[in-house]
Amino acid sequence: MSWNTFGRVLRMTTWGESHGPALGAVVDGCPPGLSLAETDIQPFLDARKPGQNKFTTQRQEADLVRILSGTFAGEDGGSRTTGTPISLMIENTDQRSKDYSEIAQTYRPGHADYAYDAKYGLRDYRGGGRSSARETAARVAAGAVARLVIPEVSILAYVAEIGGDAIDPAQFDAAEIGNNPFWCPDAAAAMRWEALVDDARKAGSSLGAVVECVATGVPAGWGAPIYAKLDADLAAAMMGINAVKGVEIGDGFGAARLTGEQNADPMRAGAEGPQFAANHAGGIAGGISTGQPVVCRVAFKPTSSILTPVDSITRGGENTQVRTKGRHDPCVGIRGTPVVEAMMALVLADHKLLHRAQCG
Amino acid sequence: MSWNTFGRVLRMTTWGESHGPALGAVVDGCPPGLSLAETDIQPFLDARKPGQNKFTTQRQEADLVRILSGTFAGEDGGSRTTGTPISLMIENTDQRSKDYSEIAQTYRPGHADYAYDAKYGLRDYRGGGRSSARETAARVAAGAVARLVIPEVSILAYVAEIGGDAIDPAQFDAAEIGNNPFWCPDAAAAMRWEALVDDARKAGSSLGAVVECVATGVPAGWGAPIYAKLDADLAAAMMGINAVKGVEIGDGFGAARLTGEQNADPMRAGAEGPQFAANHAGGIAGGISTGQPVVCRVAFKPTSSILTPVDSITRGGENTQVRTKGRHDPCVGIRGTPVVEAMMALVLADHKLLHRAQCG
Amino acid sequence: MSWNTFGRVLRMTTWGESHGPALGAVVDGCPPGLSLAETDIQPFLDARKPGQNKFTTQRQEADLVRILSGTFAGEDGGSRTTGTPISLMIENTDQRSKDYSEIAQTYRPGHADYAYDAKYGLRDYRGGGRSSARETAARVAAGAVARLVIPEVSILAYVAEIGGDAIDPAQFDAAEIGNNPFWCPDAAAAMRWEALVDDARKAGSSLGAVVECVATGVPAGWGAPIYAKLDADLAAAMMGINAVKGVEIGDGFGAARLTGEQNADPMRAGAEGPQFAANHAGGIAGGISTGQPVVCRVAFKPTSSILTPVDSITRGGENTQVRTKGRHDPCVGIRGTPVVEAMMALVLADHKLLHRAQCG
Amino acid sequence: MSWNTFGRVLRMTTWGESHGPALGAVVDGCPPGLSLAETDIQPFLDARKPGQNKFTTQRQEADLVRILSGTFAGEDGGSRTTGTPISLMIENTDQRSKDYSEIAQTYRPGHADYAYDAKYGLRDYRGGGRSSARETAARVAAGAVARLVIPEVSILAYVAEIGGDAIDPAQFDAAEIGNNPFWCPDAAAAMRWEALVDDARKAGSSLGAVVECVATGVPAGWGAPIYAKLDADLAAAMMGINAVKGVEIGDGFGAARLTGEQNADPMRAGAEGPQFAANHAGGIAGGISTGQPVVCRVAFKPTSSILTPVDSITRGGENTQVRTKGRHDPCVGIRGTPVVEAMMALVLADHKLLHRAQCG
Repeated sequence: MSWNTFGRVLRMTTWGESHGPALGAVVDGCPPGLSLAETDIQPFLDARKPGQNKFTTQRQEADLVRILSGTFAGEDGGSRTTGTPISLMIENTDQRSKDYSEIAQTYRPGHADYAYDAKYGLRDYRGGGRSSARETAARVAAGAVARLVIPEVSILAYVAEIGGDAIDPAQFDAAEIGNNPFWCPDAAAAMRWEALVDDARKAGSSLGAVVECVATGVPAGWGAPIYAKLDADLAAAMMGINAVKGVEIGDGFGAARLTGEQNADPMRAGAEGPQFAANHAGGIAGGISTGQPVVCRVAFKPTSSILTPVDSITRGGENTQVRTKGRHDPCVGIRGTPVVEAMMALVLADHKLLHRAQCG
Repeated sequence: MSWNTFGRVLRMTTWGESHGPALGAVVDGCPPGLSLAETDIQPFLDARKPGQNKFTTQRQEADLVRILSGTFAGEDGGSRTTGTPISLMIENTDQRSKDYSEIAQTYRPGHADYAYDAKYGLRDYRGGGRSSARETAARVAAGAVARLVIPEVSILAYVAEIGGDAIDPAQFDAAEIGNNPFWCPDAAAAMRWEALVDDARKAGSSLGAVVECVATGVPAGWGAPIYAKLDADLAAAMMGINAVKGVEIGDGFGAARLTGEQNADPMRAGAEGPQFAANHAGGIAGGISTGQPVVCRVAFKPTSSILTPVDSITRGGENTQVRTKGRHDPCVGIRGTPVVEAMMALVLADHKLLHRAQCG
Repeated sequence: MSWNTFGRVLRMTTWGESHGPALGAVVDGCPPGLSLAETDIQPFLDARKPGQNKFTTQRQEADLVRILSGTFAGEDGGSRTTGTPISLMIENTDQRSKDYSEIAQTYRPGHADYAYDAKYGLRDYRGGGRSSARETAARVAAGAVARLVIPEVSILAYVAEIGGDAIDPAQFDAAEIGNNPFWCPDAAAAMRWEALVDDARKAGSSLGAVVECVATGVPAGWGAPIYAKLDADLAAAMMGINAVKGVEIGDGFGAARLTGEQNADPMRAGAEGPQFAANHAGGIAGGISTGQPVVCRVAFKPTSSILTPVDSITRGGENTQVRTKGRHDPCVGIRGTPVVEAMMALVLADHKLLHRAQCG
Repeated sequence: MSWNTFGRVLRMTTWGESHGPALGAVVDGCPPGLSLAETDIQPFLDARKPGQNKFTTQRQEADLVRILSGTFAGEDGGSRTTGTPISLMIENTDQRSKDYSEIAQTYRPGHADYAYDAKYGLRDYRGGGRSSARETAARVAAGAVARLVIPEVSILAYVAEIGGDAIDPAQFDAAEIGNNPFWCPDAAAAMRWEALVDDARKAGSSLGAVVECVATGVPAGWGAPIYAKLDADLAAAMMGINAVKGVEIGDGFGAARLTGEQNADPMRAGAEGPQFAANHAGGIAGGISTGQPVVCRVAFKPTSSILTPVDSITRGGENTQVRTKGRHDPCVGIRGTPVVEAMMALVLADHKLLHRAQCG
């Protein structure tokens, strides 16, 4: 069945279609008394929103969020969470009027069109409906609330690779991330990607990407064995983002090529808990945080919407070909970066509360 | 908090420690009327059980499963599921008596020792307690029940890579998988691994591995957007297995290096639904199965238990070093293979029932 | 923590405060392809809405529902559910501007004011905030969707008792229920209640009520032992309605005064399953429906808002007295009747899908 | 589907049939570090166990509990919870060998026989299988663990009424409860019941009962609006006990017959929070505890197993009659009393942890 709620005790339920009147998220279980206003959420939506440069879809959406419930101006006049569900709504404003008859009758390869029809027997085909990456706006809004639950944690995501061209870790500079349209921490790579992505865009092609996300400040002890492990929940959170096909924690697949000696994360006594000489584990052991940075890597496939005709079939079962004209992201991983951050925040905030429930 | 239940409508709750009297799983939500006896489960436990050759830990466990509830010999005398919870119990028999004082006071790097202590303030240190891979016996038992729920599906997992040495896909032969102690479908690779793993074993070292799992026969339409996507649930299922650090669906990280044209899975009209010219997507689009084989890859890190001393600390916060003597798997990915199959079965069976709930 | 989601596979998540901009429900897990438009929901909201006569609060709310997601006009032009979350929103229009300083600082006895403050440390005191019965509008809207999932079932609720004055079962006439402002199936009782409730209203007093609800057409087999029994889920559903203090299934507390012989529900063979000579059990045995009408009774306390001063305390811990002026229901059970129906629909629809998941 | 897990963050999953080899409960989410051994659980099972006097079934069960996981003898040698799942097992020893052919083919009216068959298509008919009250032994064992989570709370349940004969509240003496086989706090009533129940027993008849349960020491603030209200969760917990048909919180149905003035619970300032002049609300307002005693009343129907023949049908749809010979409780409410206490403990412990998760 449909299952549009994420989280265990801090939970978001999202709703909305790409071309419906609005989309939104209901965030339930948020601790009371946190300072929360729309201005705490809007910057994250602005970071994700489309149409900001030529490297993302040209759809224009203001993506203005409204808080419809769950906050109250207390005695000091400041808007605070009350502990009741926080309803966030974003109106869709640029559902460009167009003829949907082709997409209504044809399955776009790589998209969810056929799968939705096979499951539900009908689908809202306008812009991909519920399967559109537009849904991730609701996640970003909810993620902004989750961040307030974990002020001790800093979350940073960035694009580490586009089209197989990776950053040089030696050139990593967090300050660069906001200086280019790619969330790229390596200035030289950003320059290369400019040409790479622009070429793909002009050719009506698309590129995949790898996004890395690092959360620092996570204390040891978050995570819930056996089936709510912190890494397992992160894996689900990331794999559930549109276009994601792979998730790694720490060294990930690289660890499968190491020996036990190479993969060890030696510990030394430190003033505030252990000091680790390495972080192959990505900050998680046995599903529980170790106090090291929590590190994950997320693989985004290239957008399936391309100008080159691809063989496909119609709803009626006839052979056809599909070319995708119109507004699309040449590299969806770029705009996925704020979504990765949001999912990291939601998982960590949930696990903070889970840990508190059991262990006080 | 602790969260030892997996699944949404077909659920298993597992319990038990490495060196406690027993471990088990309660499988709830199983359809009634399925033929189920201990002999349906035992072969899968036998495939996973330790001590079968020199490439796995020498712990000797019979791993005999007992069904304590949820089945009944009906009118025809055959044991059938009744729809009530199926309690499966496996007694531990080889909890070798030994001195645990060292492990009690020292954190083994790469293991969950420190994380458990940080979370709970105490831990059952005997053999890793709850964080031991011994818990996966319960998953394998539950997975055998899940298989009965999805007779239309065939699940096959195999080791595709050990210590960076991969199989040759051109030499893939499913019939080879049972012919060697590595679940290896490539006879030549199996011969190479024999030396590779044996060298690691003699050196007290360990190796990582990549396991692939393919499920054929999954009809189009299973999966539950947005936050119970089939691939997201698979990612959680696999990442939650002990020692797993990465999960890919279809081309996974490889897809991030493809163009949209390369990554396309073209469709042609077929007699029984669409025919796909490729399966980069691994059988899942928009979180819903497409009717193609469901394919995932799972990265296992090398076992953290090695003979080489590694820097560590004691519970009291003193520097020390840890060498792991005793019985251990030189490559835990090998014995992880039946566990991967079990988790695939549990996810698919759950989603079959979920789909039926909503879509009839 | 806050837990604003109801249901297991067909789930509603509600949000909103009495005096916020809007309230709503997200209905997830609804089967696809059902014909659903706002006109399918509005009549139920109209039945519940305030200000319709002098026996209910004089707050004026249009209670117009908007469907923001989850439906789509298919090929035949009719609006149908797509299987994705259905977001329902009702704007608040009559949050009468007033001075809240008194209620902000004083705990109204019998209301949730003190409990919310004790839990959360702050509360939205305007009209009771989240604890207001206004939230039940969202349930009624969601319940209207649930009804579409169970077309085989007819649900009828009515007021059986007000202020201790009960209907005469011998005078039960379902056609009378809509003929009076009390949902009363006994014309003579309705006439008596007119005076009874009006007297209470004029005196600034309030009265309790008992609501009965009967669902016919429920097939045998719905319900999920052991901890998701149909009667247990109904009990939770009803007890969670504002002002409810008791729930009975079938004979309820009366059954505690019967002997086994008196309480028996004898069966005879019938053309379509068993015929029952009585229904003391209220249609449920072992938590599973038997095919008889599902019957429950729900006790509503008198509204706590009364004109008579009651001892209370301030937020600061000073003694005070509270008199409740303003708009209130003299008998909240009356307007609770459509809410009882809605909760019955939600529970039954959920269990229909649950049953289908496990038993096909 | 089957749903054999109870609770939200402190959860028990129970399994087992009346005449299977064993039954049990897995308690998950328990805080670590609590002192727990079998001796903490056994007294509660002893209180519930059958065959202790002529007023309960003569089935003889030792009901010895074993802890199979989740505890560990720490450094001080004391057995403590580790935060991992606690597996509790009770072996069935008196599954008296008998001929089940009659019960296999006939539906006992008032029992779940027909409903289970209608749902599942088959059933374990030996002693009622999963629908037997024997399952409640697992709840009592799990409830004993839950009590350790809430040491600040005292829970007391007692029988307030049998066969319509109620205790005199003026004669309430908690010390009397253990002095008679009826958990009766009124010595005079206990004497009357002796004759009443014995007469029913000799006649092969049965009687209903009302059990009251009071929890003192519950702080203000536990409970989770809107759909996890403390009273709603209690209602589900109690209604789900075998043979229960009604649940009241505080004045319950009596409140429906009061005016707002009569039902008020006035507050006065006290040294440690408010003092209440009455407790009509049963310690819960808006679904959240107020700091007053939490009070509920539970109606048990008379046991359906009686000697008088009752009309029924066979599996094959033929008319027949059923007389229940053999071992049965003449008043199942008596042995239900420890079960009511256990469910109260489970709900309160769960809500303590839930509250801690959200509100710290």
